Amino acid sequence: MRLTVLAGGIGGSTFLRGLLTARPDAEITVIGNTADDITLFGLRVCPDLDTVMYTLGGGISKERGWGREDESWVIKEELAAYKMEPTWFGLGDRDVATHLVRTQMLDAGYSLTAVTEALCTRWDLPVRLLPMSDDRVETHVVTDDPDQPGGRKAIHFQEYWVRLHAEVPAHQIVAVGQEKAKPAPGVLDAIADCDVLLLPPSNPVVSVGTILGVPGIRDAVRETAAPVIGLSPIIGTGPVRGMADKVLAAVGVESTAAAVAEYYGSRASGGVLDGWLVDTSDAIQLHSIVAAGIHAQAVPLWMTDETTTAAMADAALNLAEAVRR
Amino acid sequence: MRLTVLAGGIGGSTFLRGLLTARPDAEITVIGNTADDITLFGLRVCPDLDTVMYTLGGGISKERGWGREDESWVIKEELAAYKMEPTWFGLGDRDVATHLVRTQMLDAGYSLTAVTEALCTRWDLPVRLLPMSDDRVETHVVTDDPDQPGGRKAIHFQEYWVRLHAEVPAHQIVAVGQEKAKPAPGVLDAIADCDVLLLPPSNPVVSVGTILGVPGIRDAVRETAAPVIGLSPIIGTGPVRGMADKVLAAVGVESTAAAVAEYYGSRASGGVLDGWLVDTSDAIQLHSIVAAGIHAQAVPLWMTDETTTAAMADAALNLAEAVRR
Repeated sequence: MRLTVLAGGIGGSTFLRGLLTARPDAEITVIGNTADDITLFGLRVCPDLDTVMYTLGGGISKERGWGREDESWVIKEELAAYKMEPTWFGLGDRDVATHLVRTQMLDAGYSLTAVTEALCTRWDLPVRLLPMSDDRVETHVVTDDPDQPGGRKAIHFQEYWVRLHAEVPAHQIVAVGQEKAKPAPGVLDAIADCDVLLLPPSNPVVSVGTILGVPGIRDAVRETAAPVIGLSPIIGTGPVRGMADKVLAAVGVESTAAAVAEYYGSRASGGVLDGWLVDTSDAIQLHSIVAAGIHAQAVPLWMTDETTTAAMADAALNLAEAVRR
Repeated sequence: MRLTVLAGGIGGSTFLRGLLTARPDAEITVIGNTADDITLFGLRVCPDLDTVMYTLGGGISKERGWGREDESWVIKEELAAYKMEPTWFGLGDRDVATHLVRTQMLDAGYSLTAVTEALCTRWDLPVRLLPMSDDRVETHVVTDDPDQPGGRKAIHFQEYWVRLHAEVPAHQIVAVGQEKAKPAPGVLDAIADCDVLLLPPSNPVVSVGTILGVPGIRDAVRETAAPVIGLSPIIGTGPVRGMADKVLAAVGVESTAAAVAEYYGSRASGGVLDGWLVDTSDAIQLHSIVAAGIHAQAVPLWMTDETTTAAMADAALNLAEAVRR
């Protein structure tokens, strides 16, 4: 069974672990979000790709959910001693080695796709991990400009999320460079030639939304013969994790499972979804989702352990069979 | 008192510590060798400048004489796990932070002089440290080519020294790029406007020799009004430290204190030395050094502790006063 998954960072990775438990023999391609990528101290950092790689490769910090297990922070301490900015991004020593390899290979002219493949070789990854694009796309968040009353400024998504903890108003989300980006080699084929396409409970705006926004990807999702099944990243009115509620507000979408389903839209009416899973506590919203032309089902969506997460993945694949045309 | 010192790595740094003990109030400018510099994993590494900086800034590993005290090696381990070459160069984690700062500033367009000044700010250095040049000069060693019987190939000095431990024949020493290099800002003035110019017991070929080889520097040394005093890096027939004997052989110079003095040459006859200190055990060579037109004196030159090293520095400055014209 060939499965393709459009994934952000922690939510996507956690879901993927469940999926691998539910379907250990599936041939899985992960299309990772690269619009959170940032260059820090000259190092090219790809947080979402690395979270997938470390999680599925067994190197992730279980406590933090990002970065490496058994991490040390000597470099961070030294950079601070040199008064280097920014100090708010957590670059662990083991993690820095990954970025050194990546940066050196990119500087040597390799594509991010090739670099990601090379990095994943070490981790003996049970999936094929592709960046959404080899071109630079960068999510910026338009916030209030603290230096100019009434003014606004765009900051890198990492500054909004890691430095400011999404605690300032987000007025607009801009994926800089997206309109000129091309899907990375293999991405469109992985969408066209899979048995099921899954949208895990990743951020619908800055993760899955950004992937879909790369010219050509949304159309490929609309046109694939495979059922497209999503899992709600919102339970009740809050995100499973992260700041999806804040960035949904910035794009004018309510923070509910049903509103996100409608934001993605039904494939029958030009959107990307055939089916949508909501949490059991949101079962009351099923009616309106179905009314929007999307098959829907309520199952437990808190990814508290691998068994629950595998059950979610299983439910998504069962829903795919049910909607398969 | 203004003192200018042309320094390599460990030998130069150890001597400088003695000099600071002997003359704590002196205004010292160090012109550092940059031809050992190397780019590894995209990081610009300046071993000699860093050894001076870490030694005088209190950050040096006392045990190794290079790199940082309280160092960890996580990055090195991770790079090896990614099968990145080379594995023979010891890049510690704390050290990597220095190289990250340097590389980022160089990439941003700052000169090595500006970068070195910025790095030294953190270390509150009791001397002014200048690279010999902002241009790239790289010492290569011509050795036998193991892949081609009878053939030869040039390898980077670090590969010759750190990987091969100078255990292969060195046929020739080439300072790539030297002929086009310009002295860094401040270098010629520091040579012209000092009270004494010192050549510490650094390597006469690949450290001090390379500095002197930057067009303009040797002439400035010949022309300065300050006495120029050197200290022999050879005691008996061996180097105080390192592989000076091997690279001296490559340039056709015998490994003795007198031969090195003649290699530098007397200022009176177009060389760079006014005075030369040899170890007491080499006192028998004083006669031939003096015959070559160089003031000479025998004092203990093993830099075993700071008191001995300070006494060496003191002897060098006393000899400077004796030869001052």
